[in-house]
Amino acid sequence: MSVYHRPDANKVQLLKDIANKLRIHSINTTSTCNSGHPTSCCSAAEIFSVLFFNTMKYKVAVPKDPSNDRFVLSKGHACPILYAAWAEIGLFPTADLLNLRKLSSDLEGHPTPRLNFIDVATGSLGMGLSFAAGMAYTGKYIDKSDYRVFALMGDGESAEGSIWEAMAFSSHYKLDNLVAIFDVNRLGQSDPTSLQHDVETYRKRAEAFGFNTYVLDGHDVCELVKAFHNAESVKDKPTCIIAKTFKGRGIQGIEDELNWHGKPLGGKSEQAMAEIQAIIQNNGPYNIVPPHPQDDAPKVDISNIRLPEPPVYSEPTACRAAYGKAIAKLGSANSRVIAMDGDTKNSTYAQKLMDIRPDQYVECFIAEQNLVGVGIGTATRDRAVVFLSTFAAFFSRAFDQIRMGAISQTNVNFVGSHAGVSIGEDGPSQMALEDLSMFASIPGSTVFYPSEAVSTERAVELAANTKGICFIRSSRPNVPILYDQNEKFEIGKAKVIRQSPDDKVTIVGACVTLFEAVKAADELAKTGINVRIIDPFTIKPLDAACIIENARATGGRIITVEDHYPEGGIGSAVASAVSECRDIIVRKLAVNEVPRSGKSAELIEKYGIGCSSIVKAVNQIMSL
Amino acid sequence: MSVYHRPDANKVQLLKDIANKLRIHSINTTSTCNSGHPTSCCSAAEIFSVLFFNTMKYKVAVPKDPSNDRFVLSKGHACPILYAAWAEIGLFPTADLLNLRKLSSDLEGHPTPRLNFIDVATGSLGMGLSFAAGMAYTGKYIDKSDYRVFALMGDGESAEGSIWEAMAFSSHYKLDNLVAIFDVNRLGQSDPTSLQHDVETYRKRAEAFGFNTYVLDGHDVCELVKAFHNAESVKDKPTCIIAKTFKGRGIQGIEDELNWHGKPLGGKSEQAMAEIQAIIQNNGPYNIVPPHPQDDAPKVDISNIRLPEPPVYSEPTACRAAYGKAIAKLGSANSRVIAMDGDTKNSTYAQKLMDIRPDQYVECFIAEQNLVGVGIGTATRDRAVVFLSTFAAFFSRAFDQIRMGAISQTNVNFVGSHAGVSIGEDGPSQMALEDLSMFASIPGSTVFYPSEAVSTERAVELAANTKGICFIRSSRPNVPILYDQNEKFEIGKAKVIRQSPDDKVTIVGACVTLFEAVKAADELAKTGINVRIIDPFTIKPLDAACIIENARATGGRIITVEDHYPEGGIGSAVASAVSECRDIIVRKLAVNEVPRSGKSAELIEKYGIGCSSIVKAVNQIMSL
Repeated sequence: MSVYHRPDANKVQLLKDIANKLRIHSINTTSTCNSGHPTSCCSAAEIFSVLFFNTMKYKVAVPKDPSNDRFVLSKGHACPILYAAWAEIGLFPTADLLNLRKLSSDLEGHPTPRLNFIDVATGSLGMGLSFAAGMAYTGKYIDKSDYRVFALMGDGESAEGSIWEAMAFSSHYKLDNLVAIFDVNRLGQSDPTSLQHDVETYRKRAEAFGFNTYVLDGHDVCELVKAFHNAESVKDKPTCIIAKTFKGRGIQGIEDELNWHGKPLGGKSEQAMAEIQAIIQNNGPYNIVPPHPQDDAPKVDISNIRLPEPPVYSEPTACRAAYGKAIAKLGSANSRVIAMDGDTKNSTYAQKLMDIRPDQYVECFIAEQNLVGVGIGTATRDRAVVFLSTFAAFFSRAFDQIRMGAISQTNVNFVGSHAGVSIGEDGPSQMALEDLSMFASIPGSTVFYPSEAVSTERAVELAANTKGICFIRSSRPNVPILYDQNEKFEIGKAKVIRQSPDDKVTIVGACVTLFEAVKAADELAKTGINVRIIDPFTIKPLDAACIIENARATGGRIITVEDHYPEGGIGSAVASAVSECRDIIVRKLAVNEVPRSGKSAELIEKYGIGCSSIVKAVNQIMSL
Repeated sequence: MSVYHRPDANKVQLLKDIANKLRIHSINTTSTCNSGHPTSCCSAAEIFSVLFFNTMKYKVAVPKDPSNDRFVLSKGHACPILYAAWAEIGLFPTADLLNLRKLSSDLEGHPTPRLNFIDVATGSLGMGLSFAAGMAYTGKYIDKSDYRVFALMGDGESAEGSIWEAMAFSSHYKLDNLVAIFDVNRLGQSDPTSLQHDVETYRKRAEAFGFNTYVLDGHDVCELVKAFHNAESVKDKPTCIIAKTFKGRGIQGIEDELNWHGKPLGGKSEQAMAEIQAIIQNNGPYNIVPPHPQDDAPKVDISNIRLPEPPVYSEPTACRAAYGKAIAKLGSANSRVIAMDGDTKNSTYAQKLMDIRPDQYVECFIAEQNLVGVGIGTATRDRAVVFLSTFAAFFSRAFDQIRMGAISQTNVNFVGSHAGVSIGEDGPSQMALEDLSMFASIPGSTVFYPSEAVSTERAVELAANTKGICFIRSSRPNVPILYDQNEKFEIGKAKVIRQSPDDKVTIVGACVTLFEAVKAADELAKTGINVRIIDPFTIKPLDAACIIENARATGGRIITVEDHYPEGGIGSAVASAVSECRDIIVRKLAVNEVPRSGKSAELIEKYGIGCSSIVKAVNQIMSL
């Protein structure tokens, strides 16, 4: 560890000047596009100046270099100053900054990875520290590299519980390569924050959550330089910097005033910029080259990850158990396959990877928002293939993170167990009945709903190699095996699992309801009615061609049956897929109310998605 | 405040005996149904005994009495012991406990308000304290009543950030009528908790979050009696009790052992019960009558809440601004109309109620999970009509709470502003594009998507009087006025806003896209093509009859156009509504990718939901 030397007077002045230069850019760019958050930028100007022009080790021309220090702007609305910092350090011309928020520019209103120096999209508050914790975990335990991770948060967003989930996670895992910075500028959007400038309460909270904590004047570049330096030598604890700042710092008449959140300065901008310009001694260009990182992050290959052995089953098996087998196989095939779970690993079977490769499993405890955030952080820069698991219902706890994951262009895979009423006695709080809908609404997502063990393993394999967010719904009950080890599965390709030349109706179901459809088909066959049955495999994309072709061969009649609420699941996907076909009708069977506790088979019947309901629906639809 | 008297030896023994009796019930009932969480019950036995048989003031026969103390079991999986406590205090026969988890019984696997002594459903962890904080806020500031609120949490769930949101809220509002109890039994489902028995860290965290905190032996009834007593005299601070306990307490060979989460004792249950029975001195019935509450909660009438004046507009107005007008009107008509927001009140216009009735507005800061939890807690027992607002995208942060709200039979109303790409430059993180889908998937929900200001005010009025979860999507841009003040609106009733005898296509849009459809209709009319336009008003329930009738009158052709992703919004609802009609086809126009920052009008065109896209779609569908 290097000994701390206070920066010399020239360097101090330079860092002050750069901070003010960044302020001017923030005011100017937001005034030009007449929207944005200049005052939220100004409170953080010295933090940016010190981090980007003194502390962080990175290659300016290669922002995604795996050995670079990482920076996450949790308070994404302050991105004009982040863009300004990258421009002033030389990544792109400062003139480009004036394209802020234009449709033609990647300099969006909140940061997204359309920019090569952004790893994760932010703008929904309180997520940045989880993303950063995932990166720091990866740096310390997976890459085993020296890079550090810095996350800048607002004080308003410290009310978000996800931040405290991330704080607990970071100290539990001793992430001493992580620095969490709170820009305590006192003012929220519509009111002062709850704690205003009570920095001692922030200190107590951060310390209680296990952080080495410094409280400092966030506008004093020397204090910042020293704190970032000292943090590097603290072992086994992450560092938190509570930076007392003022919103709109440097703008006379606006600094520390309410009602200036998210407002460009308009007619006041010229004078404000002139006043700040007047105290700048060095106007740049600054020609600063950041310290070079140690090139110690290993090369990683996460392409073409395959099951080393095919899935072979004979006995009825739960899909969640097949997930356990598959994740263990993939993890043994590639050491960058990482599983994470929120204290349900013995239910989701993620434990199977932990059992054989403990270094490739991360226990995230009961904190699903942070679980997802850490997963997204770990998967950035293609450092790992991440599978997250919990009860499918509990991914609803992290819908906002999943939504932001899509904007972040993440490739994280989600495996949700305990789907629907088929879980039985635990009751509605534990039953995922809106999970297909939630994941299907994510742009670019792939939604797998494998019906049995062989296809579950293939779904896991496909997900590992598929861009965007993948969701695999893994059910709890044991179900029969439909496919042999050589069956090929593709995204968007359904399987017709039962057919005859005179089928009258096509039934689309998955897992428990698919097997109910098989039972119903047997019943119906006794009465002389044959039906066709389709296993869709993926609900998004849905194999529309297969469904339309088979529907047309069966009188244009489709019945969908699913262990899910009626909205946004199989029935909705099928109805949408055939919505432009005049000759096809669809009847949806789904769970139509909040279900109760009971035995799995009882509930399937009671809520209208069992064999007898299917038989009835077939008989009814025959007349349509 | 009464002076503390240690309970006499008889009372102490009685409370110990009751705790053990509750343990026996917990073991017996879970063994009988062969599922459930007996060890999670046993750690909390003394807490239940002391709360229900000593501390809480309530009328056993009237569990919902508004003056009763409230109890929230955040660790819902421990409900067998909660049920046992209510049976032993005399609400229902203890023999009924053996119906636990049967389909025929309301004694479900996790608590729901199907039971008259449950206010809020739990089972998704980490929510109970927010619910309780809402109740405590209501007690202190709205009911101005003496009742206290007790929330029992597990230690595992203390990793959930939502708990720390609730802690911050509770201390900010000085909820000295609230007691948060952590049952620190050391063990989670699949592993020890992160902090295990490190009760001093729990103490630091609770104190840092502003709670008067006691650390005690959770199996010592005297310590519990004293702590609950002392908490009552602490003013302006909520109390937190860190109860060090042992999972499976009292069960030899299982107490404090891993791998006993969520497992009935099976063959070990008889011996376990016998061993516990052996130390019971008083076997009951206990004939304890809890202290009578002060009957000081006011009577409340929240029925038939109406706008005191009709909505009158002439100039283009944003729907969010109309929400502000409506909530202020309703709030002045009924003092139990409460608005809450998460530091976006100047964007959602919830501020309009605060401005005239500050006591009817609750600022919840940037913590959407707690916002929703507090809202649900405030609305229980029909104490208030609650409207929650934030950017619609940020309700995704609380999807799990909303899901549990439906299971809780809540009547909370959600108003989400900043819908879709029409918000413009702030970019995708701030754009709600999956909100309709999310709220539509909630069972029993009503989803309003008003197109302009008059219908927005009526949506607010209808929501105030509608059971179940209501969502109102309130858009950001100013839009023209369609309706006059006398127009009647009903849930599930659409409006045909443009028609002619020879319309060729029916277009369904809402708000910004409805007005794009009007522009497109004008364009198309110039080319001799007339189209019909429907304003659906509610997306769930959808006015299927109106849509089918008009579609049939226009060649069976429907085009839907929405500022939303393609899944789960207007297009999905319409496709499902007509899915059994062979003569109707639907083409969906929606936002098909993660959008960018840009000007509102630019984005509407770029993402295929503007006038030119509608004109093109109409021309294409004419041939189908």
